Amino acid sequence: MKCIFEKNATDSIDSHSVYTKRTTVNDIEAILYKSMPVLDHGFIRVIDYMGDDSAIAQAARVSYGEGTKRISSDEGLLRYLMSHQHTSPFEMCEIKMHIKMPIFVARQWIRHRMASVNEYSARYSLVKNDFYLPEKSNIKLQSVSNNQGRDDSAKVSEELLDRCRQILHDDAKLCHEHYQSMIDHNIARELARMNLTLNCYTEWYWKIDLHNLLNFLNLRVRSNAQWEIREYALIILNNIVKKWVPTTYRSFLSYRLDACHISAEGMKVIKRMIKGEQSIGSADENEMSKREWSELMSVLEIDS
Amino acid sequence: MKCIFEKNATDSIDSHSVYTKRTTVNDIEAILYKSMPVLDHGFIRVIDYMGDDSAIAQAARVSYGEGTKRISSDEGLLRYLMSHQHTSPFEMCEIKMHIKMPIFVARQWIRHRMASVNEYSARYSLVKNDFYLPEKSNIKLQSVSNNQGRDDSAKVSEELLDRCRQILHDDAKLCHEHYQSMIDHNIARELARMNLTLNCYTEWYWKIDLHNLLNFLNLRVRSNAQWEIREYALIILNNIVKKWVPTTYRSFLSYRLDACHISAEGMKVIKRMIKGEQSIGSADENEMSKREWSELMSVLEIDS
Amino acid sequence: MKCIFEKNATDSIDSHSVYTKRTTVNDIEAILYKSMPVLDHGFIRVIDYMGDDSAIAQAARVSYGEGTKRISSDEGLLRYLMSHQHTSPFEMCEIKMHIKMPIFVARQWIRHRMASVNEYSARYSLVKNDFYLPEKSNIKLQSVSNNQGRDDSAKVSEELLDRCRQILHDDAKLCHEHYQSMIDHNIARELARMNLTLNCYTEWYWKIDLHNLLNFLNLRVRSNAQWEIREYALIILNNIVKKWVPTTYRSFLSYRLDACHISAEGMKVIKRMIKGEQSIGSADENEMSKREWSELMSVLEIDS
Amino acid sequence: MKCIFEKNATDSIDSHSVYTKRTTVNDIEAILYKSMPVLDHGFIRVIDYMGDDSAIAQAARVSYGEGTKRISSDEGLLRYLMSHQHTSPFEMCEIKMHIKMPIFVARQWIRHRMASVNEYSARYSLVKNDFYLPEKSNIKLQSVSNNQGRDDSAKVSEELLDRCRQILHDDAKLCHEHYQSMIDHNIARELARMNLTLNCYTEWYWKIDLHNLLNFLNLRVRSNAQWEIREYALIILNNIVKKWVPTTYRSFLSYRLDACHISAEGMKVIKRMIKGEQSIGSADENEMSKREWSELMSVLEIDS
Repeated sequence: MKCIFEKNATDSIDSHSVYTKRTTVNDIEAILYKSMPVLDHGFIRVIDYMGDDSAIAQAARVSYGEGTKRISSDEGLLRYLMSHQHTSPFEMCEIKMHIKMPIFVARQWIRHRMASVNEYSARYSLVKNDFYLPEKSNIKLQSVSNNQGRDDSAKVSEELLDRCRQILHDDAKLCHEHYQSMIDHNIARELARMNLTLNCYTEWYWKIDLHNLLNFLNLRVRSNAQWEIREYALIILNNIVKKWVPTTYRSFLSYRLDACHISAEGMKVIKRMIKGEQSIGSADENEMSKREWSELMSVLEIDS
Repeated sequence: MKCIFEKNATDSIDSHSVYTKRTTVNDIEAILYKSMPVLDHGFIRVIDYMGDDSAIAQAARVSYGEGTKRISSDEGLLRYLMSHQHTSPFEMCEIKMHIKMPIFVARQWIRHRMASVNEYSARYSLVKNDFYLPEKSNIKLQSVSNNQGRDDSAKVSEELLDRCRQILHDDAKLCHEHYQSMIDHNIARELARMNLTLNCYTEWYWKIDLHNLLNFLNLRVRSNAQWEIREYALIILNNIVKKWVPTTYRSFLSYRLDACHISAEGMKVIKRMIKGEQSIGSADENEMSKREWSELMSVLEIDS
Repeated sequence: MKCIFEKNATDSIDSHSVYTKRTTVNDIEAILYKSMPVLDHGFIRVIDYMGDDSAIAQAARVSYGEGTKRISSDEGLLRYLMSHQHTSPFEMCEIKMHIKMPIFVARQWIRHRMASVNEYSARYSLVKNDFYLPEKSNIKLQSVSNNQGRDDSAKVSEELLDRCRQILHDDAKLCHEHYQSMIDHNIARELARMNLTLNCYTEWYWKIDLHNLLNFLNLRVRSNAQWEIREYALIILNNIVKKWVPTTYRSFLSYRLDACHISAEGMKVIKRMIKGEQSIGSADENEMSKREWSELMSVLEIDS
Repeated sequence: MKCIFEKNATDSIDSHSVYTKRTTVNDIEAILYKSMPVLDHGFIRVIDYMGDDSAIAQAARVSYGEGTKRISSDEGLLRYLMSHQHTSPFEMCEIKMHIKMPIFVARQWIRHRMASVNEYSARYSLVKNDFYLPEKSNIKLQSVSNNQGRDDSAKVSEELLDRCRQILHDDAKLCHEHYQSMIDHNIARELARMNLTLNCYTEWYWKIDLHNLLNFLNLRVRSNAQWEIREYALIILNNIVKKWVPTTYRSFLSYRLDACHISAEGMKVIKRMIKGEQSIGSADENEMSKREWSELMSVLEIDS
């Protein structure tokens, strides 16, 4: 079966450049409609975008008027907005992407409600035999410290790796064959599709404003996010957002991704440390739980 | 494995009734926390609620003040609000449910964004061997007229029905066994779960206001919704909403579920028919497509 | 004080046209950044846009795939989407406008929550002596039939018209003079501004997707909307939406603005009328209130 | 004119206590329906609520299942959720309040979009002669450091204070008299109301979930929020949230209100300080702007 999206093939698009008076970003134009591969069969393509760094600054200057005059550069203004949670100007930029990802990734993704979605419907259309099979290097044991994740250090035997890949491959293939066989007997698509496995790929158009995209990235780029959705988030961050709104990108790293949120109790400890107090005491003495204490020490890169 | 929700068992709750000054609906209190079965292993339980019909009327009277004095009864006022799309007072009621449904149903359900959700996480916790197996009477062929649905009239052979159920049963069972075997070898849960099929059950807490719940029902109770999600929607409509806000329920039937939305072109045809014009002409002559024309005739219960 | 938006003056923009591969709409490019006057001192300017009619069709074809093949034309597809409340593809288009309107209009406008807003802040910046003074032809008496509106037929004496305009003019002017005098004494802007009247103008950037824009228009273009906000809505509908997405515009008229929503009880009456029944009976006999009955007769253009 | 809300007077409500099986919070029951005064004529009344601290923990335990077993106490779990931005369980609680506030406060308030609102409509109903007149102690000069606020230290002369209060009083009174005179001549309410000043009071029902309420408080309780809206936010925080969900309240103070968000660059400086480095260098040498540097020193309570 042919992919329904092939009509958007890159080659023919390039010749369609036209004039616009709109804000335009050359680095995004250069990648427009082009597929960036993710995982074994997934991809991300930018379909359309609105606004750029200067559009954010302009919206802020509308709001704060006189108040923003003293901040002369857009970079200074965007850093100020980002650091003071003045989020509404970042909503003034919008991006639309075409994404192909495994269903279990789509299920995490859709939890971000402030976005518009048109997903390929398995009630209307057939599902191709396209499923995600993790590389050996990504098959890991259950983490002991992170209840929701995998353990990056524990060794997994070659035999177990092979067995897992065999299972995931064979079951997805078998389930799809049976799906196809039901389809061939004209069983309703909405019924047959329930036999598919969660590593089957799906596709959707996803449109979101920059503020909500940064919220998505701030969760999904982190190391406690599932590795597979992180792969998508990292490409959006590094190959799209960085090119589209480079100043916002830098502010986002400074004030959100690489920033630290320190609790009231943690700040008290830090101030005492900076003053050079010899004995800081235990978690308990500082009204923190053991977990909170160890998280603070980890943030401060102090062995505890 | 024990269900994590058993601590909410009905028996013990009844003894916990306490006094409240809040708006209270006896017919909902009577079913609070109790599981209403849906499909073969699913359920819906009301966990909490806020407001009732009179709370909607009260909010409307705050807004429209003098303007609502002439509408003496709450029933008249609620019908007025519903028919004139004054939707905000219906947002003043809220309900929280605990629902267990197959993953492919959850995927349709989550598209309703204006709700709060806490879903059982297969990254943190184990998935039980609980999957949906449709009754023979619900396995149907692909519909010819409704591109997304099943054909209620076409006969399916016993042999094909048996074969489908065999496939759905065996594949879900096999996939779960392999999932369990990976879990037993301590493979990360977030990885192992991708081997599960879409008819596996999941659970969530779902909280939504009445206005958005009615939007959900207006789509999911209709005959072109997938039969499985419709089963949930019908129970919410008839066993919960009808008891909780009976006046709103009746207005909803009158003005939304059983109402008709007639296009500008359709209204012209209706007016000519009512005037008794002999020859109404064809779709074309009335600037309607064949599809539009046949939908209008169907609404008017006229053979075309 | 100079308007902070003058840097966006039309003249200089035209020369900034650049190439883009994005979907582009010539009729919108032609009006980009240009002020369209509304009321005595207000305006609407389109600042940016994303997508067009074909982008909606494309998103729908992603979702419904095979199911949309039979609907060959985009017009047919968009009419189908609009009539069956498949609203998500319309979210795939976005528009950003710069709008100047009186504060009492802004207060109605902001109730539409699914939009992004950056408003001129009277905490940061000074408010100009710019207020709305209605034309004599728009000063009307309180409507008897529409509790929230004005009576278009009742005659208002010249003397009363003059008196109203005098009041509105003098009080707005006086209040602004006193505001300015407090500002001149360096009183905090956030305090001084509370002396301003509700007919003072404010400005904002407003960004919204097409689906939510149509919801806004469907309410604010109607005759029971306040005349002043209707003036804005009519310009957005006829001078912007019609040019931007002409097919969507036509579907919107057919299926929403000029369409009729008939209650279940109303449909029963219509069917009896079409069958030519001689005696339809009263409101009561048809289980309708007097208000509902008279609204139905009005829709059918029957004297009752 | 009588207040339309008097029918909810406290006295009669107390006798209406009934049994419920729902989660109930005694400390909120004790203040239900009772007016808490704010500013000179405003108030806040809790009308209804859903859920409590344990409802949040319960929703989290549904999601994270096995993963939350090790956190034995609800307090530990809620602190974990708050500190790791697991916000969805906090959406499981809901509160509805009746609030009376000046229009300029309502205009700031309504920017929080994730809430349901029914406001008293000046198109339907008459506006009482009720306006906010700030105390002398709250009339301040424009701040030099905070572009949007007032200066708490600069002295304002008694004469200027008297003059301001005179203006605000006289203009609001005059404008309302003229409003009333137009109403007396039967001018449409929607027109006459534009003559009112922004310190006039309005009222609304406001319903919001706890997560979004905390977002509101996190902005509006801070010292850079306008003093008047802060008065409302402080009462909601200290007289309502603290009683309703005391564990959430404490976590909110620890992890949001009294917490610090330190940029990537700031964390580098802190780590060097803790290590006892003698010479930290200037803003520039640490890749920070002067504003960023001085904000960091202020957070660390170091004179710079």
